[in-house]
Amino acid sequence: MTIAQSAEALTLGPLPGSSKHYMEHDGLRVPFRRVHLTNGEQVDLYDTSGPYTEDDPQIDLGRGLPKLRDQWSRPDGPFRTQLEHARAGVLTPEMRFIAAREGVAEELVLQEVAAGRAVIPANRNHPEIEPMIIGKAFRVKINANIGNSAVTSSIAEEVEKMVWATRWGADNIMDLSTGADIHETREWILRNSPVPVGTVPIYQALEKVNGDPVKLTWELYRDTIVEQCEQGVDYMTVHAGVLLRHVPLTAKRVTGIVSRGGSIMAAWCLAHHRESFLYTHFEELCEILRAYDVTFSLGDGLRPGSIADANDAAQFAELATLGELTKIAKSHGVQVMIEGPGHVPMHKIVENVRLEEELCEEAPFYTLGPLATDIAPAYDHITSAIGAAIIAQAGTAMLCYVTPKEHLGLPNRDDVKAGVIAYKIAAHAADLAKGHPKAQERDDALSKARFEFRWHDQFALSLDPDTAMAYHDETLPAEPAKKAHFCSMCGPKFCSMRISADIREQAAAQEALIAEGFEQKSREFAEAGGSVYLPISPA
Amino acid sequence: MTIAQSAEALTLGPLPGSSKHYMEHDGLRVPFRRVHLTNGEQVDLYDTSGPYTEDDPQIDLGRGLPKLRDQWSRPDGPFRTQLEHARAGVLTPEMRFIAAREGVAEELVLQEVAAGRAVIPANRNHPEIEPMIIGKAFRVKINANIGNSAVTSSIAEEVEKMVWATRWGADNIMDLSTGADIHETREWILRNSPVPVGTVPIYQALEKVNGDPVKLTWELYRDTIVEQCEQGVDYMTVHAGVLLRHVPLTAKRVTGIVSRGGSIMAAWCLAHHRESFLYTHFEELCEILRAYDVTFSLGDGLRPGSIADANDAAQFAELATLGELTKIAKSHGVQVMIEGPGHVPMHKIVENVRLEEELCEEAPFYTLGPLATDIAPAYDHITSAIGAAIIAQAGTAMLCYVTPKEHLGLPNRDDVKAGVIAYKIAAHAADLAKGHPKAQERDDALSKARFEFRWHDQFALSLDPDTAMAYHDETLPAEPAKKAHFCSMCGPKFCSMRISADIREQAAAQEALIAEGFEQKSREFAEAGGSVYLPISPA
Repeated sequence: MTIAQSAEALTLGPLPGSSKHYMEHDGLRVPFRRVHLTNGEQVDLYDTSGPYTEDDPQIDLGRGLPKLRDQWSRPDGPFRTQLEHARAGVLTPEMRFIAAREGVAEELVLQEVAAGRAVIPANRNHPEIEPMIIGKAFRVKINANIGNSAVTSSIAEEVEKMVWATRWGADNIMDLSTGADIHETREWILRNSPVPVGTVPIYQALEKVNGDPVKLTWELYRDTIVEQCEQGVDYMTVHAGVLLRHVPLTAKRVTGIVSRGGSIMAAWCLAHHRESFLYTHFEELCEILRAYDVTFSLGDGLRPGSIADANDAAQFAELATLGELTKIAKSHGVQVMIEGPGHVPMHKIVENVRLEEELCEEAPFYTLGPLATDIAPAYDHITSAIGAAIIAQAGTAMLCYVTPKEHLGLPNRDDVKAGVIAYKIAAHAADLAKGHPKAQERDDALSKARFEFRWHDQFALSLDPDTAMAYHDETLPAEPAKKAHFCSMCGPKFCSMRISADIREQAAAQEALIAEGFEQKSREFAEAGGSVYLPISPA
Repeated sequence: MTIAQSAEALTLGPLPGSSKHYMEHDGLRVPFRRVHLTNGEQVDLYDTSGPYTEDDPQIDLGRGLPKLRDQWSRPDGPFRTQLEHARAGVLTPEMRFIAAREGVAEELVLQEVAAGRAVIPANRNHPEIEPMIIGKAFRVKINANIGNSAVTSSIAEEVEKMVWATRWGADNIMDLSTGADIHETREWILRNSPVPVGTVPIYQALEKVNGDPVKLTWELYRDTIVEQCEQGVDYMTVHAGVLLRHVPLTAKRVTGIVSRGGSIMAAWCLAHHRESFLYTHFEELCEILRAYDVTFSLGDGLRPGSIADANDAAQFAELATLGELTKIAKSHGVQVMIEGPGHVPMHKIVENVRLEEELCEEAPFYTLGPLATDIAPAYDHITSAIGAAIIAQAGTAMLCYVTPKEHLGLPNRDDVKAGVIAYKIAAHAADLAKGHPKAQERDDALSKARFEFRWHDQFALSLDPDTAMAYHDETLPAEPAKKAHFCSMCGPKFCSMRISADIREQAAAQEALIAEGFEQKSREFAEAGGSVYLPISPA
């Protein structure tokens, strides 16, 4: 399959019961997924999936998505980053788009970006994206990692994974390709992605020196950064916090250094016996990223890779260094977020957020899980969704997903979906717990549909309508069962929701009678009341 | 397939890399799963799976498991419950078995049972089980619901699900059958189950009146209870806390009453306009259960069925009534645990535990999830594993699993396994967070195996070795890959664990050099140090 042909392999069109709705907002078209309920109501949901889920999407992967942001009118004057604009009190089109998309005041977006508590990853050379914001005052976001490795997968597969991941709700994509064709893979992803794209540039730099970390140089890395900035990468993981003095702190760990970037930089530092070029050239790096408004994602190269290593000296020493680098980056007008762990038992999770906020001026925290236990390979989307929900409730702004293949192999399409859905659950659970104004609407609409046996509405409002419907239909496939007042879990006689609806009717009737003082009549009604229970008798 | 034939359909024999190990302990044989690591070490794990996972299991479903507890010598005198024995300071064989199984002092078991903070569900007529304890001072336990409904499934399937669920770690089984053959299904399960079995007797009672709750009577219910006590049921859910005055509190809820038992009792109360026979005859009920040492599981008939209804007046009014009933049951010498929700957003979870402990004298809390959001039908094992981990960390003693089919249909074999594994994760994450003395051993052993690329050991120590191995083998099926220092996730050049091992070697070498004061040599070594990185170069 050539790339140009692969559009045919994409999953296109709206989700069941839904259609793409663009809200017109001061010349901006802000996308939502509009769910059409069978009772005539509508629910508009935040939508990450781009034009691919339009009713009749016109996709040409060779040409790429429309260059949306190029058409927006912008303030005159020299180029500024979103951070610099916000500090100057200037609302950018991206900020207005985001405020409408999140359903919050534009002032909130401006304030949070100006304070560095939120970032808008949007490279000036990536006009195709629908802008989004990462910060604890907003919906918790999730990132899906894709990218090929030397062992398996092709460019077409990775583009397909990107479309697939955003269909299910990925707010960001990271292209972590390490094999051949890194540049070309990224080009196809960037030109066709409706969401911001992040990378770890050291991976490509390492390919250029045939995989030997010792041969890496600042010049080679700088050229790689410029290449990726030019191409339109929106944020970049930079492991500049791995210092020479940190490395010995990992020596007694159960699992050493588990970050790929972290281990590469540690190897370089040890071999050259000096601080890494990422650290010593950090201000030059800031100037390059500023010129494109690329956001730093300061990597946690020394994150714990096991429960035993959580919250140790190596991890927190690096975090303190990331705090210093955050201040430097912000002084250059560059947006910054901070990456976090990893593997952390539940009782040690919240401390990570408090410390990050203290050391890094509340820059958005972007964590990988964390996994709450090490003992469930093949289920690490679940071990980590537990940690992710807890850390997001405590203030983490974006969650990097983990798939069932974590620690075992490269995720395929099904794994990507499983990871995205598990992380949508974690992010949404945190939004609920944080009292995000729009979060509970969806839960309430779904639960109301459930109670009223509007099965199609229950499916349409769920994170994964396809699977919910398939599970229901396993035992009750006929269409009339979609209106039945029971499912196969309890069968018709034992459906509590059905009995409960009957109770509600009867309670209302009794209340009316009691209000009229006919207590005797109430008793008679109750005693003769078999009729209201008829629906649950075998007849 | 007849029941007698169904042994052939069971999954038997040990898990990969493991064998059954019985620890001899004062005439008791306490089961463990012994994992044999490739480096010669052994790890003994808590084992719920009974004789089915012996090397060469001799299973005859028609005869049932050996009557283990009948062979144990017991204190003379009149029959006493575990609670009464504990209060009298008498260690029962069950308590000694449990202390050895949990790896804790016998005194702790005695204390916790005497205080009513832990229960040992073990009907005197259920000699087949390997005793276990439910209480917050011990490992967090999980329960798997099985049972047929009117719509689907057979007795043989349910027996198979029981064996399957305990293979993956279910500490308890509840038989929630509601269709035909309730008594016979239960008999097959009881005689063949290595774990305690719970029921909700109102389901069978309702079958006896053709599904019309209004026709239920105390006499009919009492006879059902006696029948089930005689048969050997270890604990029974009794919705005695649903009072007449509570029912109107549910009228404005989004999802009304979602407990089957709760809705049945509410319907009865309303129709008869008086308190339920479960409440008015509670002391007689206590006397019956005491005679067999059946444990009460006081049901939360008014638990919330949606995020909107969490922690509301109806739920907490019933919990206060359960507190009163707890005191009455304990005054009769009956063991008690308390059932809890349901659907609860994360920020409202801990309050449930605090209130339960305050109102119910710290009787073991036994919760269904809770689900931390309503929006993911087909993934409610995950939405609820998040809530379950948090509520268990706060002190819940047993978690009732939720499968991917929750709200959609009757779980099949795969769903049962998915539910059990998700709940083992939640329970173990809580054990880690609570600092259970044995919990972290397994994480550390697995992480050490991971770091040392002992793939077979990593699989054997995981909750589901079969799936972990299958996922790994999808991309690297050849046996040599089981010793390879990488997997397909990152490929050979980018494996951080491999680089980290190299770093560790080099750091140790440098440290030795520095210690000798040869700093110059260190630099030379580093500069010539390509050799230590050879493993990650393409060669």
